[in-house]
Amino acid sequence: MKRRSDISRSVISRMPRYYRFLKKINREGLDRISSAELARRMGLTASQVRQDFNLFGGFGQQGYGYNVKQLSAEIGKIIGVDRRNKLILVGAGNLGKAVSRHITFEDMGFTLIGIFDTDKKKIGDNINGCTVLDYAAISDFCSENKPDAAIIAVPDFAAEDVVKTLYACEVKSFWNFTHYDIDSDYSDVVVENVHLNDSLMTLCYNISNI
Amino acid sequence: MKRRSDISRSVISRMPRYYRFLKKINREGLDRISSAELARRMGLTASQVRQDFNLFGGFGQQGYGYNVKQLSAEIGKIIGVDRRNKLILVGAGNLGKAVSRHITFEDMGFTLIGIFDTDKKKIGDNINGCTVLDYAAISDFCSENKPDAAIIAVPDFAAEDVVKTLYACEVKSFWNFTHYDIDSDYSDVVVENVHLNDSLMTLCYNISNI
Repeated sequence: MKRRSDISRSVISRMPRYYRFLKKINREGLDRISSAELARRMGLTASQVRQDFNLFGGFGQQGYGYNVKQLSAEIGKIIGVDRRNKLILVGAGNLGKAVSRHITFEDMGFTLIGIFDTDKKKIGDNINGCTVLDYAAISDFCSENKPDAAIIAVPDFAAEDVVKTLYACEVKSFWNFTHYDIDSDYSDVVVENVHLNDSLMTLCYNISNI
Repeated sequence: MKRRSDISRSVISRMPRYYRFLKKINREGLDRISSAELARRMGLTASQVRQDFNLFGGFGQQGYGYNVKQLSAEIGKIIGVDRRNKLILVGAGNLGKAVSRHITFEDMGFTLIGIFDTDKKKIGDNINGCTVLDYAAISDFCSENKPDAAIIAVPDFAAEDVVKTLYACEVKSFWNFTHYDIDSDYSDVVVENVHLNDSLMTLCYNISNI
């Protein structure tokens, strides 16, 4: 079994996908699944699946296939979905609001504990049971509540300042919807970027070049 | 220069990022940039940058650096941002609405020409200058307007049916926000997935394992 820190980004990014497929297979009522069948459904090769799982110590007995429920639980635990990482949302615009309504944070290892905006018209609004607070109070909130991570859904021009403020409050994990490259300015942060524009342009490229 | 179809997914997915950085560098007022400096800003190596660009025939003269404006225009053209691919949005819920308000489609090679939902309360709403139409009329709309691509922002359970209907109408390019794996059912489609749950779970893993 590899040390966790040696596992490559691409393997890590496949773990949620395994988890998602296994949940679905479990809902279908299947008890066991072979690496070959799991691979087929996911568009991978069986040896790829076995290799990925071996990095975490392997999860099954050769020839018997995997116990779906058990495997899904183990991968969930590796991802940390049973955790309750405290999460704040900065930016209650269209995207921030939509994300906080769309995602079931509790199923992904998070609890949303605060939403912040600078817009006086938004402050006091209720989004999914969370009240929008004044961004001016974010430092006090952070020293009191010690969030583990922040969703950055502010306009691009504001992102650098927001991250600077949060970093000063010891918030070092970011789900970033802006184009600000957080890890180019900070070396000890955890960042997961959602670049919607890049994704749409990739689609554009592929439409032009098929 | 490679044939476009031989260029790997990872190179392709870097092109929008080059484009985004070059636009920014241009706004900063820089005329020329070396591959080394561009690489530094983007967290790549200079040889990686040159290799990527060579796949498209190279864009600069050795030793002179790249003309920023020209390079950005050429990459934009490769991506196809000057196109006006006709795009429809299926699903005017929180996420679909937020995406259609948040993205400047015209800058990414698209024009939004229609929004569809099954919810009678949403039909007739105006989102960013586009009226929400009844999903029941989508086939007629497609045969008349021939959209090039569709945003799939419906609930997961509805995704398979929506894609089936669109595919029958010759819509074969998808910006997919659901968990339905479109390309496992269709071999001749272009799909760009935005898996928000997977992204958040990857963040969760990384928080647990740093």
